[in-house]
Amino acid sequence: MRKGIATVSVSGTLTEKLAAIAAAGFDGVEIFENDLISCPLSPERIRDRAADLGLGIDLYQPLRDFEAVGPARLEHNLRRAERKFRLMERLGAGMLLVCSSVSPESADDDDLAAEQLHALAELAGRHGIRVAYEALAWGRHVNEYLHAWRIVQLAGHPNLGTCLDSFHILSRGSDPIGIEAIPGDKVFFLQLADAPPLAMDVLQWSRHYRCFPGQGGFDVTGLVRHVLNTGYQGPLSLEVFNDVFRQSDACRTALDAMRSLIALEESLDRRAPGPVIPTGFAFIELTTELTTELTKGLTTEIATEIKKGPATGPATGPSAGDTLPPAPGEAAALVGLLAAFGFTRTGAHPTKPVEMWEQGEARVLLNATGTGTALAAIGLETPDPAASARRAEHLLAPVLPRERAPGEAPLEAIAAPDGTQIFFCRSGRADHPDWTGDFTGDPAMALRPSPGTVIPATPTPPPPGITRVDHVALTQPWHHFDEASLFYRSVLGLRPLESMEVPEPSGLLRSRAMAGPDEAVRMVLNQARVGARHTPWQHVALSCDDIRGIARRLHAEHPGLLLPIPDNYYDDLEARHDVGPEIRELGLLYDRDEYGEFLHLYTITVGRVFFEIVERAGGYRGYGAANAAVRLAVQHARGPGTP
Amino acid sequence: MRKGIATVSVSGTLTEKLAAIAAAGFDGVEIFENDLISCPLSPERIRDRAADLGLGIDLYQPLRDFEAVGPARLEHNLRRAERKFRLMERLGAGMLLVCSSVSPESADDDDLAAEQLHALAELAGRHGIRVAYEALAWGRHVNEYLHAWRIVQLAGHPNLGTCLDSFHILSRGSDPIGIEAIPGDKVFFLQLADAPPLAMDVLQWSRHYRCFPGQGGFDVTGLVRHVLNTGYQGPLSLEVFNDVFRQSDACRTALDAMRSLIALEESLDRRAPGPVIPTGFAFIELTTELTTELTKGLTTEIATEIKKGPATGPATGPSAGDTLPPAPGEAAALVGLLAAFGFTRTGAHPTKPVEMWEQGEARVLLNATGTGTALAAIGLETPDPAASARRAEHLLAPVLPRERAPGEAPLEAIAAPDGTQIFFCRSGRADHPDWTGDFTGDPAMALRPSPGTVIPATPTPPPPGITRVDHVALTQPWHHFDEASLFYRSVLGLRPLESMEVPEPSGLLRSRAMAGPDEAVRMVLNQARVGARHTPWQHVALSCDDIRGIARRLHAEHPGLLLPIPDNYYDDLEARHDVGPEIRELGLLYDRDEYGEFLHLYTITVGRVFFEIVERAGGYRGYGAANAAVRLAVQHARGPGTP
Repeated sequence: MRKGIATVSVSGTLTEKLAAIAAAGFDGVEIFENDLISCPLSPERIRDRAADLGLGIDLYQPLRDFEAVGPARLEHNLRRAERKFRLMERLGAGMLLVCSSVSPESADDDDLAAEQLHALAELAGRHGIRVAYEALAWGRHVNEYLHAWRIVQLAGHPNLGTCLDSFHILSRGSDPIGIEAIPGDKVFFLQLADAPPLAMDVLQWSRHYRCFPGQGGFDVTGLVRHVLNTGYQGPLSLEVFNDVFRQSDACRTALDAMRSLIALEESLDRRAPGPVIPTGFAFIELTTELTTELTKGLTTEIATEIKKGPATGPATGPSAGDTLPPAPGEAAALVGLLAAFGFTRTGAHPTKPVEMWEQGEARVLLNATGTGTALAAIGLETPDPAASARRAEHLLAPVLPRERAPGEAPLEAIAAPDGTQIFFCRSGRADHPDWTGDFTGDPAMALRPSPGTVIPATPTPPPPGITRVDHVALTQPWHHFDEASLFYRSVLGLRPLESMEVPEPSGLLRSRAMAGPDEAVRMVLNQARVGARHTPWQHVALSCDDIRGIARRLHAEHPGLLLPIPDNYYDDLEARHDVGPEIRELGLLYDRDEYGEFLHLYTITVGRVFFEIVERAGGYRGYGAANAAVRLAVQHARGPGTP
Repeated sequence: MRKGIATVSVSGTLTEKLAAIAAAGFDGVEIFENDLISCPLSPERIRDRAADLGLGIDLYQPLRDFEAVGPARLEHNLRRAERKFRLMERLGAGMLLVCSSVSPESADDDDLAAEQLHALAELAGRHGIRVAYEALAWGRHVNEYLHAWRIVQLAGHPNLGTCLDSFHILSRGSDPIGIEAIPGDKVFFLQLADAPPLAMDVLQWSRHYRCFPGQGGFDVTGLVRHVLNTGYQGPLSLEVFNDVFRQSDACRTALDAMRSLIALEESLDRRAPGPVIPTGFAFIELTTELTTELTKGLTTEIATEIKKGPATGPATGPSAGDTLPPAPGEAAALVGLLAAFGFTRTGAHPTKPVEMWEQGEARVLLNATGTGTALAAIGLETPDPAASARRAEHLLAPVLPRERAPGEAPLEAIAAPDGTQIFFCRSGRADHPDWTGDFTGDPAMALRPSPGTVIPATPTPPPPGITRVDHVALTQPWHHFDEASLFYRSVLGLRPLESMEVPEPSGLLRSRAMAGPDEAVRMVLNQARVGARHTPWQHVALSCDDIRGIARRLHAEHPGLLLPIPDNYYDDLEARHDVGPEIRELGLLYDRDEYGEFLHLYTITVGRVFFEIVERAGGYRGYGAANAAVRLAVQHARGPGTP
């Protein structure tokens, strides 16, 4: 289907907008009047510019409060319309949009409205232009799409039809089934927008919070299906007023918009293949810095060293102005954490400084080519890695080039909007080359920067405890949160679960959990606070079946690795729930929902990364969000991540 | 009166919050439960910390959905309350706040609510604690303050009173007169917040958009007057949930909060002196950079040079990638602009590189000690400069130290929140030393950096046209907009006029005009877009009586100084209004309101600064906001200010 977008949906000047929209692959645009008025190019040059870019100008909406007015006002409005029709001819725009009037001057008189729209359509016809009449959700007398359609019928002019807008219909809770009563050739235009559920004045909601289909809460697909059932042949055109999109990079927003339409189109086609659902985490890759400590440092020694580090909260944290002991290298700190959890170093890449650590079904790759520690990549198990990658590419995800040595397994990878690399894997199956087979190097040699360095063997691992990766939490730049949400939804087939806002000492943190159909893959997207220049913490949550045992061991052997939880938290917890003293003694956090209970603990932060260990009991479905505020406050007080 | 604030109103950890609140001079705090739970200090140490800072802990609100529940839930609630009372004893907090229940479990039964609150008060009494019951605006059954008071009366317990909250009362449109029916000794607590008028769900409005009294649209003063009429002796305590304050600097927010209470207290006292109203602009001071061009450059030559510069919009602007001709220095560009407008260089400071330029009542000081061009200071005429400065200091404005040479006139100055210096002047009056008398230097020598440079005399000025400064527009950092608004309102007595949002290519610009009682001083505060790192343009609008004459002359002699307005603007203007072709020919912008008409033009930007020339006819009251979007789009396309 033809795909269009209103220029108001992206940032920039008109020429910048047109370039961004064309680059994203759109076929047409609705030119917003402000954009044209502010543009130094003549209408003819704008038309030529659009044509050179392969864009048609599908719609123009220069009139407000047109219909059902007195004779003097009508005369003025028609005079104005005549000038705008001439402009549209210069612009090459064949469709005029008229929204229902919001003016107190307009009469509640359908016959009068129809008569005046007939006059407008007659005038339009002389310029070869068609007029689409639309019910604004806050129109004074006409605010239901079927009411607008009745007026179009009354007017009975071939150049007059109706325009349907998903926001105006769904924001009022109107049933879109009625659309099917309209003949498709009288649906002159279809504008699409989604919106998050917000209890606010519909005008403000519409002007500031619209988003692209799939980013909000409306059933846009259902509505479009009704429109297509009428026989509608026109474009799907996005008209999105969004404060954040208005100030984001236009090219990026336009791509995000196009992705939403591709996903929408796919959702309309019941025979479309749909997402290749990932069935679990294959690995988590952390990049880290190879510092000199690692050349001499080893799991046990490093763990001991970390143990001596600050672990008593703000009193000794950087915010208290104390001098910290020299921090061990971040790579060493990660190695210390993994060893303390009971992970074993099981392999190394033969040519790159990358180690594999494993425990249960959880795999962590440590890649020592980074600057600073960050969660760089997520490996997902999928039944068909090539199909996963093809689909991601179809949804405009950048496919990452992979330099592959002869004999290495093929690895399909794409980039998520926040830069995280997503690898599609099929591990340990006979029908597919296994990427883990590439880790043939001597584990003892992996992160050794020079051949002369001696690295002792990994110590005997403690009893296993971690079973798998429970979820990964990624912080998104504040102005790309909706984009990321749509990406993970459309590309990976994750469903958005509840969104929440968590108070942290430096603002409110918006957070949205997403999970696949069987919760095999769970992710949490956090939104960095508005205006933040850096995206803060990322974390990996690891599942276990005996968090008490793990906590007891960590407390005994590596107390400095655990994020300290204030006593006041336990005073409150014990006032709210009937929990025993063990939770406090072990420094665990507790939550419960209608399904079950949740126990978890957090580690200190290394670079941008920290770990969580979780135990879900009785089908608990949440993510411990009730405890996020405490965790964030303690992290804030301790300052930026230092091991 | 005792002044308090809830810790939720400012950012940081609890200890950071307490320090900021104490530094701003508050007497007490309401500790928000999340802040306590996340704090590693014990309740005793928190109490001591607060006491050391001179802060009492006035209120704690750990219970939700307490009243009108079944017996099992009541037992659970009382057990929890007992633990919280013990905590409050350790904390030294003597007042518990209970908000009306929002739970579907609660019964619509005033007698039951009263009975259970009686039990709570009885328990509280054993710990020496009092309980204040408050109607939440969105309480399930109890959401009117008089309803909460009836339940308190029914309960009839000496340890139970009511808490009044201006937001919960005024957001529902309840008449606060009824407060006077409550005996003052049963008003246990008063929480204050203001809020902007927003048509949205009251819960969301309350949680995200509250602001300090004087920053929103509520008549908080009127409400407090009713409360004081009851004989209420407790604190005025601010409880403000605001997304922006949550992430701003705590010390700054706390000072802003204190300023709001000082201004509120003043507004309660009908005998208080009130602001010393400024009667006009004494001067505008622009700092600029002294570059080598100035040593050889002169007004006429520079104007010619500027004339050769880019002036045709984006096609030749930096965004088109062309190589610009070398830009003349910014100081030279300003001199060129002022001379082109018909300003005359009338004086110079004897010891500093500062010149005075005058025309009509407008004075512009050019201070060549800056780095880049910016509007650094505003001189305001006031009947009593010393009183103006005293009052500003009382409202916590930083008073600027002035180094004054012997014989120079005293100048009182303060700093506005955005760093702009505000000088209080009394010019040309026999009863006060005149600051203009300090400009005794030879104007021809002022900005001459080395004695050997020859600077010709100022050319013969063109016929005068500018009469005075019409207004000054300052862009505020996005997270200090409300603070700035309260500052100009309380310190200078400017009234906030309409607020609006203007689309610009990189976001929505929020803008608020403010003016003194007789419009002698008008200012426009613009809010930089959310997350912007730099605060962009400032401008000075100059009045005239014949803008056509000025525009004609500028077009003929200095066309490169004018911001070019797109032809498409005029096509639309002529479709909307009955204006002649002269407006287009002269490159003017046009607006009108119910009072009159407005013609204006803009110059190119130098550094951060541009000029506007305006002509108001027939009592037009606005600021040409209808044309701001066009102006912003053209400025955006031309890129950052280069002369």
